Amino acid sequence: MHGLHLTADLHDCQCGPQWLIDGPALGAVCIKAVSAAGLQAVGKIVHSFPATPQGPGGVTATVLLAESHLCIHTWPEQRGVTLDVYVCNFGGDHSAKAHALMECLISVFQPRHSERNELRRGQIAA
Amino acid sequence: MHGLHLTADLHDCQCGPQWLIDGPALGAVCIKAVSAAGLQAVGKIVHSFPATPQGPGGVTATVLLAESHLCIHTWPEQRGVTLDVYVCNFGGDHSAKAHALMECLISVFQPRHSERNELRRGQIAA
Repeated sequence: MHGLHLTADLHDCQCGPQWLIDGPALGAVCIKAVSAAGLQAVGKIVHSFPATPQGPGGVTATVLLAESHLCIHTWPEQRGVTLDVYVCNFGGDHSAKAHALMECLISVFQPRHSERNELRRGQIAA
Repeated sequence: MHGLHLTADLHDCQCGPQWLIDGPALGAVCIKAVSAAGLQAVGKIVHSFPATPQGPGGVTATVLLAESHLCIHTWPEQRGVTLDVYVCNFGGDHSAKAHALMECLISVFQPRHSERNELRRGQIAA
């Protein structure tokens, strides 16, 4: 269960608005990015939130991976996005693929500012 | 998009084996725990991995929340579990509910050892 969990919180995203509000489009780009990174999707769920007085609702998209998971939440009214890419290293070190997936997703959203973090998971012995 | 992301990596879990290998049972307990914590589920996906020569396969369960997400991965051959509870604070501070949900889930798995982490998300201004 050793693995690497990358997070990125993206601000002032310059991407086209569809990436922040179009659930099916975002889900499809996630699957494409997972595959391009050499990771394996085993399930996907997308939820589009209803519009508010501030404008269109955001989207949550999750891809279950053979190697763990990818989660995206969008905040269109703030042009913000949070990203999680978590890969376990069962069957090999997938850290480079996790970084590649994260870079691909960040390039979709084109943030002006971001906060990034890396967490090693499951390190202690039982 | 400000929020709190809790992680816990659980080792040497003393729970009954069903919580590590029974996808539908784990999915149901997640929904119950989310509701008990006062959070709102908006979607759920569960994936059960195939058995390996080491024994029954693990489970990935994700609950999409109005407040963000919950993800669980189990590793039955190691009696290990990783937990993620991420809540945004849109519409109120949901930090106490996130902690309550995490405690409830940890009590299901009964680990002998755990590593826990807290990450504040989305803090910088755009």
